[in-house]
Amino acid sequence: MSPSQPGDRLVLFDTTLRDGEQSPGAAMTLSAKLRVAKLLAAMGVDVLEAGFPISSPQQADAVRQIVDALADTETVVCALGRAHEADVRAAGEALQGGRRTRIHTFIATSDIHIAAKFSAPRFGSTLEERRASVLRMAVEAVQQAKSFTDDVEFSAEDAGRTDHDFLCDVVAAAIEAGATTINIPDTTGYCTPADYGALFRAVQDCCDTSGVVLSTHCHDDLGLAVANTLAGVEAGARQVEVTINGIGERAGNAPLEEVAMALRVRADHYGVTHGLDATKLGEASRLVSVVTGFVVPPNKAIVGANAFAHEAGIHQHGVLKDRETYEIMRAADVGADAQGIRLGRHSGRHGLFARLARLGLEVEDADRDAVYARFVALADQKREIYDGDLRQIIDPATGAAERGFSLVGLRVSTGADERPHAEVTLLDAATGQVRVETASGDGPVDAIYRAIDGAAGRPHRLETYSIRALTKAADAMGEALVVVSDGPALAQGKATGTDILRASAEAYVQALNGLDADDHDEGGFVKEGIMASFDTV
Amino acid sequence: MSPSQPGDRLVLFDTTLRDGEQSPGAAMTLSAKLRVAKLLAAMGVDVLEAGFPISSPQQADAVRQIVDALADTETVVCALGRAHEADVRAAGEALQGGRRTRIHTFIATSDIHIAAKFSAPRFGSTLEERRASVLRMAVEAVQQAKSFTDDVEFSAEDAGRTDHDFLCDVVAAAIEAGATTINIPDTTGYCTPADYGALFRAVQDCCDTSGVVLSTHCHDDLGLAVANTLAGVEAGARQVEVTINGIGERAGNAPLEEVAMALRVRADHYGVTHGLDATKLGEASRLVSVVTGFVVPPNKAIVGANAFAHEAGIHQHGVLKDRETYEIMRAADVGADAQGIRLGRHSGRHGLFARLARLGLEVEDADRDAVYARFVALADQKREIYDGDLRQIIDPATGAAERGFSLVGLRVSTGADERPHAEVTLLDAATGQVRVETASGDGPVDAIYRAIDGAAGRPHRLETYSIRALTKAADAMGEALVVVSDGPALAQGKATGTDILRASAEAYVQALNGLDADDHDEGGFVKEGIMASFDTV
Repeated sequence: MSPSQPGDRLVLFDTTLRDGEQSPGAAMTLSAKLRVAKLLAAMGVDVLEAGFPISSPQQADAVRQIVDALADTETVVCALGRAHEADVRAAGEALQGGRRTRIHTFIATSDIHIAAKFSAPRFGSTLEERRASVLRMAVEAVQQAKSFTDDVEFSAEDAGRTDHDFLCDVVAAAIEAGATTINIPDTTGYCTPADYGALFRAVQDCCDTSGVVLSTHCHDDLGLAVANTLAGVEAGARQVEVTINGIGERAGNAPLEEVAMALRVRADHYGVTHGLDATKLGEASRLVSVVTGFVVPPNKAIVGANAFAHEAGIHQHGVLKDRETYEIMRAADVGADAQGIRLGRHSGRHGLFARLARLGLEVEDADRDAVYARFVALADQKREIYDGDLRQIIDPATGAAERGFSLVGLRVSTGADERPHAEVTLLDAATGQVRVETASGDGPVDAIYRAIDGAAGRPHRLETYSIRALTKAADAMGEALVVVSDGPALAQGKATGTDILRASAEAYVQALNGLDADDHDEGGFVKEGIMASFDTV
Repeated sequence: MSPSQPGDRLVLFDTTLRDGEQSPGAAMTLSAKLRVAKLLAAMGVDVLEAGFPISSPQQADAVRQIVDALADTETVVCALGRAHEADVRAAGEALQGGRRTRIHTFIATSDIHIAAKFSAPRFGSTLEERRASVLRMAVEAVQQAKSFTDDVEFSAEDAGRTDHDFLCDVVAAAIEAGATTINIPDTTGYCTPADYGALFRAVQDCCDTSGVVLSTHCHDDLGLAVANTLAGVEAGARQVEVTINGIGERAGNAPLEEVAMALRVRADHYGVTHGLDATKLGEASRLVSVVTGFVVPPNKAIVGANAFAHEAGIHQHGVLKDRETYEIMRAADVGADAQGIRLGRHSGRHGLFARLARLGLEVEDADRDAVYARFVALADQKREIYDGDLRQIIDPATGAAERGFSLVGLRVSTGADERPHAEVTLLDAATGQVRVETASGDGPVDAIYRAIDGAAGRPHRLETYSIRALTKAADAMGEALVVVSDGPALAQGKATGTDILRASAEAYVQALNGLDADDHDEGGFVKEGIMASFDTV
């Protein structure tokens, strides 16, 4: 396949570490960037934009280290620079020694950007003169970039609002100067899908683009980044610029996971292929969320906690009979932490009895009405129903956990002038033994967890700890979520309460118990622990 | 304007309280539902789907109470029921006495759903027989609904995957039976915008839809809910079913805020109007996030914390010269908590000196290089740069807060058998006085805040408290965010640290200090407090 004919193989260009990291608050450490870069390369991302070297010495260093880290992969490492001599030089130097490298240079082409950025007298006094300056700078930057690498990308910033004739002039000049990829970004997220597709058709009509790859770069200000990216592909683009979780300036970029899965699930419509190993999308989403601190909402497509979860009774009925009824892809295809069916107020009889059967709890036909009535009553009180609650519904008298540890005592002290200290008392249900342990730590939760580790004596690794407020007052409910692992086994614990320290302790104990449960999942999926809920200490 | 001609006035149908609440984990209390319903009505939402009365007594009660609460508004209250006699009756009874009410009934029409749900012998043994059963049930349900209210909506569930001929038969029959709105949902989120638009054109080609309003209902499984909704509008739909923050089954529904603003910002393209007071979108997003516990990521379009924030130096340069350069709408238009420009590693000289000027800190030209170098060095260490940090950059010797309280002592104890207790020591910078106070509370944070209230003696209201882990280990950084108000003044405090209790205390003290700062914002915008950062206690 020659690049002169739009083929069916799409180039996935990830800019999580450049446009994504540019989001306020998303700055990543060098070690975080290296972890993200290695995972993206392992996923089969074709081009990885690693940073903007002129912007700080740390950015330049990160690009250099990513070049080294990906030396043995097929991933092209890209560095960004404005169409200025010093920017292109910094990008070229940071990429030096890399086997597969790309310089990405850009300049604003819309009248509104030109007026804002090129008003200094040296750029000319009329729009025509300033446009001529822009054109000249674009050509010089591409030529300079070619002295470092053959693989040069040029972007016409704010192409979405650029005069079509001038856009054609700039694109033709950049191609003539040697650019091999031409990016047509919707920098402000203003385009409709119809507008954005028309832009690609216009560029192809007026320029000879047969020797280059055209690229999309869409922002999500109006919620259209995915649709615009796909409209670009329909109109001939064969590179998509995307980020994990859609992070990026303002409302962010088109999410890699959504674009990649839309193209795969609807390959019948879009007719293009790509090389992504989508089973790592869940892991990539969690990693980027952890290193940036940017949360992923439960209702996020592909990677949200609920993306493959069903609650409503009607839907569950359908899902259980035939998953295809409501699922257009499988959670396993995208490495989601599929937690299967969650139960709640809307779950209905089918969902309840299917879940009970999965737990090995068969209910006689004669008892089903009573069990279902207790379930509805509990569901109206609680946000989510966990396995431990279900045991209570079946036999309200024996709701207690029958194995594992339970937290029977907790004391924590901390202060500005002392190291946080915790005393924990665990009851081992199997032996009836009570174990008391004390520890200090970097924070009160750390101290509690060290004390629990001592009391439980159960080897494991803490994978995730998170806490969030469920309501907005200081005395209201918080939720702690813990994931622990032991080799391939993973288990999760979740607890809510007004005392965030006690909720943190309960969640941890439940997660440890989950590791020892017979039905924990060895396949990399997180098992739900038992929900502990209490009002006040 | 007759409903027989698609006019240019769109009906906004919000289903946050029905499809949204159906998301696993999103169940809301009755009082939360009433707050959301009143706000949606005040925003000018045309139809509010309040619940699914047959599913539980609490759902029916919520619908009844919402009917009462919205009695004096123009908002139509809608209740959902399957195409079953008991469902429609429950919906009709729950709506009884309402001035403007709608019953929304639905039945699955795709072969795959029919096979999964109507396999019982009473529905027939062939696909044709089962389709005939579906058609009959649809007609009976619409007729029954008409006995309760003239305003009846019918949905063909999984219309996106329904045979076009059968879809036409069902839609024609539902219209004949008296349905006034016909909803064509993409239940599984499988459609491309091209598919979804074609569905509306097909229905209009084969049925006389001149007397009804056609409606969209799109799920976001492939990230296309907004684009599909807009494609439906382009193809003649004049109702859109949406939710705040896009909550809903699996990946959720099309977000009200994105659909409404895309239609408004791009009215030139879509040519329709709606009656939404968009300035309440920010408030609605926060309310729904708080009552469901579903987070809104910073990069969420329209309502995310970063939706109007700019960090990259290049972008800031543009923004400061002309906001239009990167903004296609104003934060104030959508009631966003515009925090203006945030500073970080990518902010550049323009962003830094503009922010310093806003703080009244002018830097001599001769000092600018040194100040900028200190800023870059700090930015490489810190995620975000706050005003307090900037004072340090200008004069590293006098970085300390010069007014307000500072936390000089903190002791907390809690346990399973005792009420959490806190002792707090504050230093008042104005007087040099030290104040010590103790308190107990429902949780350790509640106890700390009560003690600080006693020591500070500063009247205020706590608006928001939240805590989140910035990294995933128990001993790693957590961030506490606090917003307090006093009348129209709002102030925010944020602190990070490995001790979540101390971070919570620091954030609260900083927020209180912000209330007394000269430059706090009276306009409903949240002022950023000073970032306190520390490693361990």
